[in-house]
Order: sequence, then C-alpha cells, then structure tokens
Amino acid sequence: MKKLSMVDKGFLLGESREMPMHVSGVSLFTLPDGAEVQEFLEGIADNLKDADALLPPFGDRIKTGRLGVAGNVYWEPDPSLDLDYHIRHSALPRPGRYRELFNLVGRLHGTLLERSRPLWEMHLIEGLENRQFAIFSKTHHAAVDGARSIHVTRSMLSSDPDTVRSESPLSLASWESYRKAIKEGRQAEYTDAEVRTVADILKSTYGSGANAFNALKNVAGAWTGRKSDLAMPHLKVPRSSLNGKIDAGRRFVAQTWPFARIRAVGKAFDATFNDTVLAMCAGALRQYMLNHSELPKDSLKTLVPVSLRQAGDVDSGNAVAGITADLSTNIADPIKRFSAIKASVEAGKANYAGMSPKEVELLTMAMSAPTMLLLPLGMISHLPPYNLTISNVPGMRETMYWNGARMDGSYPLSIITDGMALNITLVSYADQVDFGIIACRRSVPQVQRLIDYMEDALQELEDAVGLKAKPTRRRAAVKTKAKAKTKTKTKTKANPKAKNSAAAKPKPKPKPKAKAKAKPKAKAKSTAKSSTTAKSKVKPKSKSKG
Amino acid sequence: MKKLSMVDKGFLLGESREMPMHVSGVSLFTLPDGAEVQEFLEGIADNLKDADALLPPFGDRIKTGRLGVAGNVYWEPDPSLDLDYHIRHSALPRPGRYRELFNLVGRLHGTLLERSRPLWEMHLIEGLENRQFAIFSKTHHAAVDGARSIHVTRSMLSSDPDTVRSESPLSLASWESYRKAIKEGRQAEYTDAEVRTVADILKSTYGSGANAFNALKNVAGAWTGRKSDLAMPHLKVPRSSLNGKIDAGRRFVAQTWPFARIRAVGKAFDATFNDTVLAMCAGALRQYMLNHSELPKDSLKTLVPVSLRQAGDVDSGNAVAGITADLSTNIADPIKRFSAIKASVEAGKANYAGMSPKEVELLTMAMSAPTMLLLPLGMISHLPPYNLTISNVPGMRETMYWNGARMDGSYPLSIITDGMALNITLVSYADQVDFGIIACRRSVPQVQRLIDYMEDALQELEDAVGLKAKPTRRRAAVKTKAKAKTKTKTKTKANPKAKNSAAAKPKPKPKPKAKAKAKPKAKAKSTAKSSTTAKSKVKPKSKSKG
Repeated sequence: MKKLSMVDKGFLLGESREMPMHVSGVSLFTLPDGAEVQEFLEGIADNLKDADALLPPFGDRIKTGRLGVAGNVYWEPDPSLDLDYHIRHSALPRPGRYRELFNLVGRLHGTLLERSRPLWEMHLIEGLENRQFAIFSKTHHAAVDGARSIHVTRSMLSSDPDTVRSESPLSLASWESYRKAIKEGRQAEYTDAEVRTVADILKSTYGSGANAFNALKNVAGAWTGRKSDLAMPHLKVPRSSLNGKIDAGRRFVAQTWPFARIRAVGKAFDATFNDTVLAMCAGALRQYMLNHSELPKDSLKTLVPVSLRQAGDVDSGNAVAGITADLSTNIADPIKRFSAIKASVEAGKANYAGMSPKEVELLTMAMSAPTMLLLPLGMISHLPPYNLTISNVPGMRETMYWNGARMDGSYPLSIITDGMALNITLVSYADQVDFGIIACRRSVPQVQRLIDYMEDALQELEDAVGLKAKPTRRRAAVKTKAKAKTKTKTKTKANPKAKNSAAAKPKPKPKPKAKAKAKPKAKAKSTAKSSTTAKSKVKPKSKSKG
Repeated sequence: MKKLSMVDKGFLLGESREMPMHVSGVSLFTLPDGAEVQEFLEGIADNLKDADALLPPFGDRIKTGRLGVAGNVYWEPDPSLDLDYHIRHSALPRPGRYRELFNLVGRLHGTLLERSRPLWEMHLIEGLENRQFAIFSKTHHAAVDGARSIHVTRSMLSSDPDTVRSESPLSLASWESYRKAIKEGRQAEYTDAEVRTVADILKSTYGSGANAFNALKNVAGAWTGRKSDLAMPHLKVPRSSLNGKIDAGRRFVAQTWPFARIRAVGKAFDATFNDTVLAMCAGALRQYMLNHSELPKDSLKTLVPVSLRQAGDVDSGNAVAGITADLSTNIADPIKRFSAIKASVEAGKANYAGMSPKEVELLTMAMSAPTMLLLPLGMISHLPPYNLTISNVPGMRETMYWNGARMDGSYPLSIITDGMALNITLVSYADQVDFGIIACRRSVPQVQRLIDYMEDALQELEDAVGLKAKPTRRRAAVKTKAKAKTKTKTKTKANPKAKNSAAAKPKPKPKPKAKAKAKPKAKAKSTAKSSTTAKSKVKPKSKSKG
C-alpha cells in the first residue's frame, strides 16, 4: 500500500462540502463520419473498462486508521471495483447548446467524490448539436498529479485519426506502452515545465516527503519577517466579492480564442502571451465589477505561475514560480493598464532574482499555498494574498483524436475556495487557447459575462494598436436591448429572480482555424425563448428528435 | 425566523456524505397530445418559478450560530434566492429506457443538498421513450414534513386533464388557495393516517418540542428493562449484508403492480394488503440472499408502519405504530412463510394492545428511531433493531395530471443509513401500486433483481391459491442462460468486474390498467448489447434521433 504524501493528504484534509478538492476537465469531440453517437460512446465506455489492472490510483481507494485523514493515509485496491460507477453516461436536454453543457458540467463539478471508492469519475455526454459529444472527467487532487494527468490524457489520444485503441487508456498496460514509446523516442515527450500547473508548483515545492505543515510554519515566520518587504511589495490586496465565503454551487463557462490573435496583441505591446492573457482578464474583471458597482479602489491581484528560466538555461527544470501580478483594474485606459500589468509581472519575476532556490520555493509556497493548504489552519481570512488565480497550462500542440473522434477543445475546471471564488485556467491546444472559468455561483452570479468582456478587452487592445482581427463570435444576449425582441411563449409572467440566469447563454465556441474539417457553425435554437440571440448572424435551425 | 425542532435538527446532525438525509421521489408523466417536450418542460419550469413568495421553507435556508447545527437552528430567507439553481433541466442518454432514468435518479439521490441554500432540488427530465418525461424532486428531511410534502404534490396536480396552473405550486398563494379549497369542501382532504410515513411517526412521536435525546435515553432504559420481553420478542435480528456500513453510491429501481392483483392474493390468504406486500418482499429477499449465498439462518426483520385503529375508532388519529415484522426468510415454503409473516404482524400489533399511548409512543420511537437518530450517538452497530424498512404510503386515488400531462406513476426514494442499506417504499396511486427501492450500491450490488424476485414471489403465491393473474411484464435478463444469446459488438473482452452491473436492466414499468390511453408497450433497444433481453416478448424497435 502506497502512503499518501502530506501534500496529497492536505487536499483530503482541506476538503468540505462547499470546497471539493477535485479538478475536472471537459473536452469536446466531433464524431467521426458515419459514426452513431450511442454506439460510439458505448464503444469508448467498453474500451475504458477493458483493463486487467488499472494505472494507480484509478483502481485504489484511500484507507485510513482511527485518526481518519489526520493520521496516516494509504492507497489500497478497492475490493469491489465498480467501473460502471466511475464511467457514466449522461445527456444534455435539448437544444444541446454549450449553455446546457456548461450547466451540467458546473453541477457535476460541484458535488463531492465518494471517499470509499477510487477518487475519480468520467462522464460521456451526448446530446450536443453538430455531431459533437463531450467527455467530463473529475479527479481528486489527492489522487492526480498534474503531470500524470496530462500524460494520461495524452496517452488516450492520438494525432492520427485512424488510430483505434485496443486497451483501456486507464490500464497499467496502456500506461506502460506509452512510457515505452517515449523512451524509444517514438512519442514526443513534453518537458517538465510544459506540464506544470499551479498544483504542480505546490507539489514540487513540498515534494520528497517534506512535512507541509512544518514548511508552512517556516513560511509564516518569513511572512512577517525579513523577507516580507523585499519579496511581497504588492500584497495590498483589496477585499472584493471574489474573496468571501463560498458555497457549493458552481457556474462554469468556457471559450476558445485563436492563439495567433492573442499573440499578435502581445507582440504589438512587446509583451508576452501570458501578459496579454492577464490584460484580457483584467479588462473583463474591471468591466464586470464596474457593472456590478463593486470595483475596488485598489487593483485586483492574481496569482499567476511564471517561468523563471532564462534563454539557454536548461538546468532549472523547477524554475516555475507563482507570482502575484497586479491586474491594474483601477486604471481605466487599456494601454496604461496593459503596461502596468507587464511591469508588475516583471517586478514579480525580479523579486526572485537574488534569491536562493530554497527561498524561491518558500516564497512560491507562501503565495500559492494559502487557499489550498492554509485553509485547514483557518488562516485564509487573515491573509488574502490575491483575489483570484489565472493559470496558463501548456497543452497539446497537434490536433488530437480519440478513436477517430476529433478533439475540438479541452477546458479545465479548477478548485475554488473560501477567499477565492474565481479561477481562470487556460490550456493551449493546437492553434487555439481554451479558457475554462469556474466560479462560486453565489459570489459571481454572472460569470458567463466575463467571456464577453474578455473579447471586448481583446478588441480594445487590438483597436489601440491598429490590429484588425476577426472577432471571436459572441452572443448578443448580453446587450440588454436585444431582450426587447424576445417573444414570450409562456402563459405566466417572467420571474424577475430568474432573469439573470436566463440571460446566461454561453457563446458558441468558435470553430478552430486552419482545420480541414472544421465544425459547422453554431446553431441558434428555433424556439421563441432563445431568440434573445437576436443579433446573432447565425441562422436558427430547428432540430427535431424522435 | 422559525426555529427548527429537535427532530428536524436531528436530520441535519445525523447527515454525512455517505448518508444524506433527504427524501426524493420520481414521477413519470405522459406528454399531452400535440405537446412538444422541450416547450412543455420549459412551461412547467417557468410556472414553478413564477411566485412572489414561496411556501416556507422553499425560499428559506438554515441559519446557525457559532455552535453550527448543534446549537439553535433557524430558517431565514435566502438573500439571493436562485430558482435556476433549484429547478434543473436534465436529460437521459439514449435509448431513454427506465434503466437510464433509474441510473440518473440514483446518482442525483446520492449527492448532498447544498446547506447554504433552500434544501430542495427539482429536476425536469427529458429523453424518455414513448412521449414520457419524469420529474425528480429531492427535499431535505429537516425541511419537509411527510404530510406537507404529499399536500404540495397534491396541490400541483389535478384530476382534470384540462386544468392549467396559473401560479407556481411552490408559491404561498397556491398553497393558500389549496387550503381554502379543502376548507370549503371543494377538494377532498386525506386523513392524517393516510398521509403518514415512517418519518411522520417519528415527528408525531417527538413533536411539541420534546427533547429527542432525553426521550431516547428513556428508551434505552426500556430497551434492556421491563418492557423488552413484553414488547420486543422478535428483536433477534440477524446480521446480513444489508446491515453494514454504507457508502454514498446508490442504486435505485422502481416497478408498478396492479393494486387488484396484490389484494386478490391477500384475500385468498385472509390477510391484509400490507401482509401481502411483506410476503412479496420476503420471497424476493430470500431469493436474492440465496443467490448470493448469504441467507442468514435467522429470519430477516423489517420495520413496517401499521395502523392500530380498530373499526369504528375515529379518535386515535395518531394510532400508527412502527412494528418489527418477521419476514420469515428462513422458511422455504411460500404458504407457511406467508402465514408466519401474518402472525408476526398480528403479534406486533398485539404488543401495543395493553399499553398506554405514551408507551406506544416510546416503543414506536425505539424501533423506528435508531437508524435516523441513534446514528449520531454511535449506537447503531450495537442495536440493529431490524434489517430493512418497508413502508406503505397511501397516495392519490385518482389519475392525476399536471397541466394536462398524465401522471403514470410516482416512486419514492427514501433514506438509507449505516446498518440499513435497503429501503422499500410503496405508494398507492389510482389502481396501481408504485414500488421504489433504494439501496447502497456496494452493499446490495444487484438490487434491480429484487423487482424480478418480487414478481416471482407474487406468482408463487397466486399459483398456491389457484389465482391466474396476468404477470406483470418483466425482463428476461435475470435468467443467466439468456446471456448466451448476447451478441458482443465490442472489440474487447467483457470486463468481469463490470458484469454484474451490466446486467442491471430494470424492467419496463407495466402499463397502468383501465386507462383509455395506456402507454405503448416498452421497447427493447435495437443494439446488440441489449439483446440480453432475449426472452422478452416485446419487439425491438430502432429509435433514431437528430
């Protein structure tokens, strides 16, 4: 029986019904030509279940002694492993837009995993328009390692649409042949830096069995001591609606942007891709908070993982640090705001310049740990080190397929906690960038608007430097005047309490560029209710089913 | 702010992630002619949300002080009531059989309600075959009162298919007009006894602010003292797979039988309807446990609520007691088994004969409380007072409609706990009896077979007394030889671990008798996988969509 590390145990200790400690992802696929969805998904489910031995810990559950998770915790094989429990078949109500998908996925992400079973679920979801289906997977952070998670996903997929799997991607056998392929150079391996996420920073920091809580005690000393002036000049974090207590309700939205479009803006500003993403998010958050009359006087701060490696430096594989960037949400001018963000990131990196690797470790831990691991210590409300997390996770560079079904996008759903009700995580994939935004349903009731405001912010920056990019398609429903065109088909008066949520129509994902067989354009549904998307240029199309 | 009673609080205190303390129900409806499912369900959702004020506590959440639910607990209005959170739209994957419905409903029943919001959810479920849809509702036992729950359901429905609701059935206004109709005699009221459930027994026992835990202390004394010989002669409860620790995974199955069929058997045996139901369950449990080589030497015991009223007695409205009936699962002969069950119920009732009302109260409490309220006291594993609960809840006598959609059946999902991993609850409705069986997924892995074994047991009793009833339609998949006819379409070998669950095909619900527009016969799906229903007489029918 393998013992859980202190860090992995921390995710069990820190968990509550309001704050599940699992991470999820939802991937969109297009069915291969001629395939029938039900048969195809059954084939995938059967394939997933077809394993003599599962890759640990997919077949293991946690085992504790009398002290529960406070004592020693081990992985042990589930004595009555029930793969039908873990691999589930779900469906969307009609019309099967992304709105319905995000609703379902937000709900699924908001419930706790069962502790007496292996800590994962996978949902095969049918009912999407345009021959798409989705796969939602949910794994406890105590069980998954960011790097392994990406490798497992990678081993499920193939860049060759004609590859059909013969053994479960969850099987130990499959994992071993994947590792073998990497060793023999038949499969490109991603570097450590490429597969790191915020959680990996934590893990690498605490790794090798170090006692996380002793380490945190050291940090707490550093926090108020010598290093505090040096390293944390920008920790003046405002209180905002993002930083109260959260409940278990979630809202999820996702959107894809072309990588080239964001990079072009970055180049024009002589800034990094990451800086540009922060500027998009900053513009969106400013707009959101202005609209809700809750923009704090001080700028919002975000945790963001950055690479500290210099060009030519191949040695410091672990040199990824979490810095707190100033989003300059108090600056109205988008150009000045972008410059301030850029300067803040550079200052954040500079803080690490004169420090020893051990100090970088501690500082990173101090800034990235609290919402994860200071939680059980009750310290979170005293030390809000940032308002939200924006993570940029490198993903796969090629268009990928699962048994011939093209993956159209893959969107992460991360962890939110008391004190941090919003998480934006983006994953690069082929020539696109997939954003997943997860929020507390009560703290950020209109999180879907952030997607629109991000597009607004990007266009604003493009306009400022004279770039003329094709806008990423967005719904018109956020313009309140479009509401006037809504026909009411129900007999009863609209419920004002439900109004906000009724407007929560996620925008169709734009089709990936430079694909031979791009997805058909998103359809608006034909019923009167959805004609709130009145400004949409896409044609409504009636979809009838048995 | 209304304070919660000790009993209601008990359901909050006793709750854990493995043992949610909510009760649920799933109702099947047939769409009115010409109605389109999406539009119809949206109309229902809009109607449900259309309320100026909700009937308490549908708009209230619990409020606690520093002691949490251990201290005083109150209802307070949810400051940001979000009806879109509570009223949800879901769908079934194809082919949309009852199997898919029961899977979904079992999952939905297994997750905790969010404590910072009003303690209920309602799911409108599309994707069923044959123009049916389903409504799944889930309410915390601390919030719902059995009687009120039935009245609320009653006020949603109408015996007139042409009635269309103008205000939300969850609204205070709707509740008040329903009460007014009862007062004026325009609406038949059900008697207290008719709407009591096991939980109501608990509530009426503890009512009027009595301290539940002091009461339980008294009971504990009685348990080992003077009354134990007198009143609990049949408390020799065997250990069984139903009586260990449970986890949060659930399995749900449901089935309808004609009321007349069960009553006819009862008459032939000079027994009550309730006795006959117990005999059906006893036969099924014996068969199940024999097949799993785990039939205990001693008979299984069940808690069953019985009426103690004598003919002509109109005074003792509260005279419903929980008795522990001996299911005589150790008796092979079905006729002898039935007689033993009948005698056991009569003996159980007789125990109450010489007792004062207060003693009846205490005894009922002692036998019905433990799994609910002794749980937080950690006493459950020492005192397994029965192996399962079988509750018979009187329902509505007429065929009912919701905005013209005929209700085809309504199936309860009750609470299971450590020590009691199986609950069978039946509700009478029009001329049928709807059984809902909820079980711990790990403890009772093949609970769906109980439905088949209940039909077997009923037929066995019919044969014994020469009754020739038309059997309630059942699937053939439980016959293992039928498996031989299964074509395998997957490329990979079947996973032996998943085998049991793959056989978990719930039987189609029989069509209600004496209905002008009865439901079409259940369809078997056309794919090779489901041809395990090889002995079924129904014709497979391919159903293509989108």
